[in-house]
Amino acid sequence: MEKLEVFQKQMKRLNIKAYIITTSDYHMSEYISDFFKSRQYLSGFTGSAGLLLVLQDSAYLWTDGRYYIQAQKQLEGKAITLMKQGMPGVPSVAEFLNDNLKEEDVVAFDGKTVNVSFVLDLKDKIKFPINILSNIDLIQTVWDNRPNLPYSLIYKLDMFFCGKTYEDKIKALRKELKKQEADSLLLTSLEDQAWLYNLRADDVLHTPVFLAYSLITLESTILFVDTNKIDLEVGKYLTDNEIIVKPYNDIYSYLQGFKQHDIMLDFNKVNYQLYSIISPNNKLINKTNPTVMMKAIKNDVEIKNTKLAHIKDGVAFTKFMYYVKTNHSLQTKMSELSVSNYLQLQREKNEGFIDLSFSTICGFKDHAAMMHYSATESSNYLLNDNGFLLIDSGGHYLEGTTDITRTIALGEISSEMKLHFTTVLKSVIALSQAVFLKGCRGLNLDILARGPIWKLLIDYKCGTGHGVGHILSVHEPPNGFRWQVVEERSDSAVIVPGMITTNEPGIYLENKYGIRIENELLCVEKGSNQFGDFLGFETLTFAPIDIDAIDTNLLSNDEKNWLNEYHQQVYDKLSPYLSSDEAKWLKHYTRKIN
Amino acid sequence: MEKLEVFQKQMKRLNIKAYIITTSDYHMSEYISDFFKSRQYLSGFTGSAGLLLVLQDSAYLWTDGRYYIQAQKQLEGKAITLMKQGMPGVPSVAEFLNDNLKEEDVVAFDGKTVNVSFVLDLKDKIKFPINILSNIDLIQTVWDNRPNLPYSLIYKLDMFFCGKTYEDKIKALRKELKKQEADSLLLTSLEDQAWLYNLRADDVLHTPVFLAYSLITLESTILFVDTNKIDLEVGKYLTDNEIIVKPYNDIYSYLQGFKQHDIMLDFNKVNYQLYSIISPNNKLINKTNPTVMMKAIKNDVEIKNTKLAHIKDGVAFTKFMYYVKTNHSLQTKMSELSVSNYLQLQREKNEGFIDLSFSTICGFKDHAAMMHYSATESSNYLLNDNGFLLIDSGGHYLEGTTDITRTIALGEISSEMKLHFTTVLKSVIALSQAVFLKGCRGLNLDILARGPIWKLLIDYKCGTGHGVGHILSVHEPPNGFRWQVVEERSDSAVIVPGMITTNEPGIYLENKYGIRIENELLCVEKGSNQFGDFLGFETLTFAPIDIDAIDTNLLSNDEKNWLNEYHQQVYDKLSPYLSSDEAKWLKHYTRKIN
Repeated sequence: MEKLEVFQKQMKRLNIKAYIITTSDYHMSEYISDFFKSRQYLSGFTGSAGLLLVLQDSAYLWTDGRYYIQAQKQLEGKAITLMKQGMPGVPSVAEFLNDNLKEEDVVAFDGKTVNVSFVLDLKDKIKFPINILSNIDLIQTVWDNRPNLPYSLIYKLDMFFCGKTYEDKIKALRKELKKQEADSLLLTSLEDQAWLYNLRADDVLHTPVFLAYSLITLESTILFVDTNKIDLEVGKYLTDNEIIVKPYNDIYSYLQGFKQHDIMLDFNKVNYQLYSIISPNNKLINKTNPTVMMKAIKNDVEIKNTKLAHIKDGVAFTKFMYYVKTNHSLQTKMSELSVSNYLQLQREKNEGFIDLSFSTICGFKDHAAMMHYSATESSNYLLNDNGFLLIDSGGHYLEGTTDITRTIALGEISSEMKLHFTTVLKSVIALSQAVFLKGCRGLNLDILARGPIWKLLIDYKCGTGHGVGHILSVHEPPNGFRWQVVEERSDSAVIVPGMITTNEPGIYLENKYGIRIENELLCVEKGSNQFGDFLGFETLTFAPIDIDAIDTNLLSNDEKNWLNEYHQQVYDKLSPYLSSDEAKWLKHYTRKIN
Repeated sequence: MEKLEVFQKQMKRLNIKAYIITTSDYHMSEYISDFFKSRQYLSGFTGSAGLLLVLQDSAYLWTDGRYYIQAQKQLEGKAITLMKQGMPGVPSVAEFLNDNLKEEDVVAFDGKTVNVSFVLDLKDKIKFPINILSNIDLIQTVWDNRPNLPYSLIYKLDMFFCGKTYEDKIKALRKELKKQEADSLLLTSLEDQAWLYNLRADDVLHTPVFLAYSLITLESTILFVDTNKIDLEVGKYLTDNEIIVKPYNDIYSYLQGFKQHDIMLDFNKVNYQLYSIISPNNKLINKTNPTVMMKAIKNDVEIKNTKLAHIKDGVAFTKFMYYVKTNHSLQTKMSELSVSNYLQLQREKNEGFIDLSFSTICGFKDHAAMMHYSATESSNYLLNDNGFLLIDSGGHYLEGTTDITRTIALGEISSEMKLHFTTVLKSVIALSQAVFLKGCRGLNLDILARGPIWKLLIDYKCGTGHGVGHILSVHEPPNGFRWQVVEERSDSAVIVPGMITTNEPGIYLENKYGIRIENELLCVEKGSNQFGDFLGFETLTFAPIDIDAIDTNLLSNDEKNWLNEYHQQVYDKLSPYLSSDEAKWLKHYTRKIN
C-alpha cells in the first residue's frame, strides 16, 4: 500500500476529514531539517515551498510559480492534484475547504508546524464551524525510520566577524520593546536568535542555526535549547552574559506559567501550539520581531567582511566557469552534478568556508526552466550539447554569506537565446543603477528589472530579489524586490542603507531553457540635498557575465559602460587569486565591448 | 483691522479655540466656486490645496510641495505661518492641535465643507476630549460681499459624445450596489453625478458640473438640485428617465427621514454635516463610489472622441508655440498673461470648445519653478529675456478634456538647462514606453518617470500624473502615477485599459527655472499569453517637444527613435489644420534627430 493510502486510513480511523501538512519546522524556518519533511515524505515533491492537503480519498498540493514545472513532474502518476497557487481560478486552501467540507468536520494538523496567523486566518475564512485538532503529529504513525531532530554543536562568532556584542544587541532590543510597550518577547525564529546571541551551529541544512526558543523580558533572557549542544566555552559565554539556559521542550511548560505580561510575538513566526498555551491574562502584541530590522541592516564590520566573502566566492566561481567553458565539448562527460561538485570543491578550498548557503541549482537546457531545479542522479543531464547552463549557488564563510547566479553559454546558441540573455542583463543593469529617494520599497523599484523583460511580453513568476542574511539564512526579510505585496513573505520593507538584496531577474521558457543572472546589491547613500536623501546600490558580487551570450547591438552605450566597468572590477579583484591560465581566460572574458 | 483679526475676534467671542478652514465646497470638489473660497479670502493664498488653521492669536497654513514657493510669497508679511506638509519635522494638523489645545477646548469648522473621514480621524488622533462645533460657517460673519452660490443652466450630453445612456449606467450601478450588499447610495461628488446623468453645467470654474446631491436606491433616483437650473428639455429628459428632482437643500431634511437602509457612502466624499444627520438605524457602508471606477474606464465612444479633442487641442497649442517661438526677442512685448490669452484664443476657435479645463499655468524663468504658478497683473513677466517658458493648459471640448504641458526655450539657454530638459524628456519617454502586467499600480510604474531625474539627485514634489475626466474634472481618481500611496488622493488604483493618465515629470529649481513636459496616456492592451495579460500606453497628446532644448548626445538610440516617431505623428496629425507658414515651421520642429 502507498504511504499516502496508509496515512488516509489513519485519518479515517480518527475521523479526520482533512489533514494539512505545511513545509515548516517548529520555528517557521524556510529551510527545514529532515525530521520535518513530512510533506516531501508523503507527496514526493521536493521543492522548498508547498502545502499538502490530504482528504480521506484525495490529496492536493499547493505550490508557487517557482515550482509549477517541478511539481508537475514529481507528482506524475500520484493521486495528488497540483494546485498552482496564485493562478487565476485556483482556489486558496480555505476556499477549497469551504467547498469540500461540512459543518463540524475535523480538520487536523501539527500545531507546532503552523504559525498562529495561518490558523486564525483559516478559522476566519471557513464559513461554518469545524473542529480543529492541532495537538497531533499523524505523520509519526506512518513514517518508518523518520530522521531524528537535528543535532550539532553551537559555536560562537568572534567580534571580528559579527561586529556587535550580544550586550549591545540585547540593550537595543529591550529599548525597542519598551518603545512598543511590551515587557517581554517570545522569540522563536532561529535566525533571529542566532543573530542576537552571536551563536551559530549546523542544525538546518545550509543554514547555520540551532533549534531554540527564547523568552526575553526587560530583565532576563531564557534560552530553551538542547543543552547537549552547548560546550564549555559557549556555556561560559552564556553564563557571563546572564543568559539562562533551559531544555528545548521546557518552553511549553514554562510559557504556561508565564502570566501578567505584555508579550510581543510575531503571529507569522510563532507556532500555533505555543500561542494556544499562553495564559489569557497576558496581553499579546502581534508585531514583527524587532530583531528582523536590526539584523537586516548590516553593521560596518559585517559589510566589510561580506565584501571579502564575495571575493573568495567570486574566485571559486570564476575557476569553475573557466573549467566548464574550456572543457565543454559535445563529447564531454561533465554533468549537472559533476560540475556542481566541482564548484563546491572550489568553494571549500577557501579559508573560512563553512557550508554552501543553499543546495546548488545547476540546470542544463530545459532543466533550467525550472527555477529551483535540483539535479538528482536520475535527472542528471550530461553537458554534451549546445545550450545554456544555469547555476545558482552560494557559500557561507566566516566573513559572510553569498548567493550568485550565472547562465553560461556552452557551444553555439541561437539568436533568440542571445536576445533573452541580453534582455536579462539589461534588467540586472537597470536595477543595479537605480537611484531613489529614501522611502522606496522593492515594489517601487521592481519594474526597473522586470521592465525590459515585460517589453518582450515575458514574465518571471517570482520576486526579483530577496534579502540575504549574514552567516544566516540566504533568504532574509524584510527587504526584497517584488512588484506586489505578498503578505506571507514580509519582504516589502523600505530599503535602507546597510541592507543586502539580490538582483536576479530571469527568463524561463518551459521545455526550452532558463536564464538568470544574479548579483547581490548593498544599499548605500548617494547624497542628500533640498530634494531629500537619495540612495542607490553597490554591487557586491564579482564574477564574469558570459560575453558569449550577449548581443551587443541590443545594449545602449550606458549599458555597455556599466558592463565594461563591472568586468574591469571583476578582473582587478579576482585575477590575483587565479592561475595564469585562468587569469588569461578571465582577461578575455572581461574584455571591453563596444 | 485685518480680516484675520476680525475673524479671531469673532472666535474669541464664541470661545472657539481653533477654527479649521479646508479648501472645499459641500461636495469635496477639487476646484471650487468663489462662494467657497474662505481659505483664500482669509489667508490670501490662492493655491488649489491648503488648510488654514486659525487659533485666537495665530494662524497656520498647511499646503503641499506643489505650492511651497507660491505660498511663501503670498503669505509674506502676514501673521500666518506656512506648514510644509510632508516635510520632515512638520507636524500634521492633529499633531499640532495635540500640542496647542487643552482638554474641552472648542474646535470649530463648517461641517458641510469637510468630509467624514477628516473629522473621524481628527477625533481619533486628538488625545484628549475636545468640543466640536460643526454646524457653523463663521466666515459668513466677516465676509462682506461674499459671492453667491454658483448658478448655471444644466445641459444634456448627446449619446454621440458620452457613448452610454443613463439607463445603462444606473442599471450597472444598481447591480454593483447589490453586489456590495447596499440598497442605496448617497452620491454627493459632482463629477460622479454629472457622469451618471450625462448632464453638464458651469457651476465650478473650468469644471462643467452642477451642485447637486443624489440619493439612489435600487428602485428610485432622487436628484437634489436648484430647480432653476433645469430647463424644459432637461426637465423632460429627467422625467423620461424617472429621475425625481427635489430642491438642492432638501437633501438634509430628506436624509433625516431616510431609515432602515443599507447606505453606501464614501466617507472621503460625503460632507460631515450629511453624515451627522443620518439616522442610526441605517447601516452605513463606507466605500468608494462605484461610479469612480465606472467613469475612469472610458468607453469606446469617449476614447474615440478624446482622440479628436487632442488633435484640436494640439493644433491650438502648435499655433501658439509657433507664435511665441517666432515672435520672441529681447524687445518683445509678449508677457505671461498675453501669451496665455493668445493660447486661449486658439482653443476657443475650435468647434465644440466648452471651456479651459483649468486655469492656465504660464511661467517664465523662475516663475515656472512654482509648479502651479498662476500669473497675475502684478506678477506678470514680459518674455523679453532668454529662458524657459513653461505652459500647462488644457481645454474641455464636446469630444473630451485635455491637459498638456510644454516647456519652450526662448533665446539661448545654458547647457545645464538642456541637460535638465533632456532628462525630463527621458522620463516622459520611459513611462510612455512602459509595458507591464495587469495588476500594476502607479506606484509600480512611477520610477520609470522619476528614475532619470533621481539620478541627477533631483526630485519633483508631486505625483508624476493624474487621471483625466471626460468633460469633467481634469484631475480624476482613482488612477495616477505616484511612488507613495497618499490616502487622501485615492489615486493608486490598478491601471486598466481605458484609463487616461497624465505623464508629467519635471525639474523645478527655486529662483531659476521650471521644466515640465506632459502628455496624456491611454492604457491599452499589449497582448496576453501564458505569462499573463500585458498592458501599455498610447500617447493621446500631440504637440512638438521643443527640439531647441534637447541635448541629443544624452539620448539613447531607443529614445531618439521614440522622439522621431512621435514627432512624425505630430506633423502628420496636425499639419493639415495649420497655415503654410505654421506647417513649414512644424516640419522643422518635428525633424528627425540622430
